Amino acid sequence: MASRTSSPLIHPDVDDLDLFKIMSALTDETRLTIVVTLSVSPGLACSGFTQDVTASVLTRHFRVLREAGLIRQHDIGTRRINTLRKEELDQRFPGLLDLVLKESVGRVKPYVNDECA
Amino acid sequence: MASRTSSPLIHPDVDDLDLFKIMSALTDETRLTIVVTLSVSPGLACSGFTQDVTASVLTRHFRVLREAGLIRQHDIGTRRINTLRKEELDQRFPGLLDLVLKESVGRVKPYVNDECA
Repeated sequence: MASRTSSPLIHPDVDDLDLFKIMSALTDETRLTIVVTLSVSPGLACSGFTQDVTASVLTRHFRVLREAGLIRQHDIGTRRINTLRKEELDQRFPGLLDLVLKESVGRVKPYVNDECA
Repeated sequence: MASRTSSPLIHPDVDDLDLFKIMSALTDETRLTIVVTLSVSPGLACSGFTQDVTASVLTRHFRVLREAGLIRQHDIGTRRINTLRKEELDQRFPGLLDLVLKESVGRVKPYVNDECA
């Protein structure tokens, strides 16, 4: 099956992960919600991830997260699968992601949508 | 001696420190430079902290850092003394500040000015 896009999806290597880029990415509530959701629903693929923003805005948020090294994206047919790079993040910045997830409680909730695959 | 300002300097309690407010504060290079400088020069008071920004901009950066709980400010006469809230930050978010300081190496340098007290 043809891939969703012909342009390659760029992911930073674990050694190139930038703490400040990661922190900047996490200061946005929509992006934080995506990260929290992926922490409980690995491999989520859903164009209607949240109802509060347009598809193009959502695409930009996913790109920021990918370029910061927080998530990995790969295409299966027309679906773009998103996973949290938890092991690599834990390796590079031990404790950071757990701290972020802990502190996100009460601030954002994982997105739940029965239509999500 | 009269204090520098009649308006009280508000500092969040350690239990109210907000990880995301702290991360947001640290995504600015001038503010990161201030934090790195205060980590090696505690109690720094200097109106000419950096030469790259105006005094009013610098005042705003210090306020953002204070309101995020990263620094404590107090006035002695006409001088405003700045200190990093390292112990409280270490208590609330263990390892975070050390990680920030470690990752700031090569990105920003502590500001050095012989006129600083």
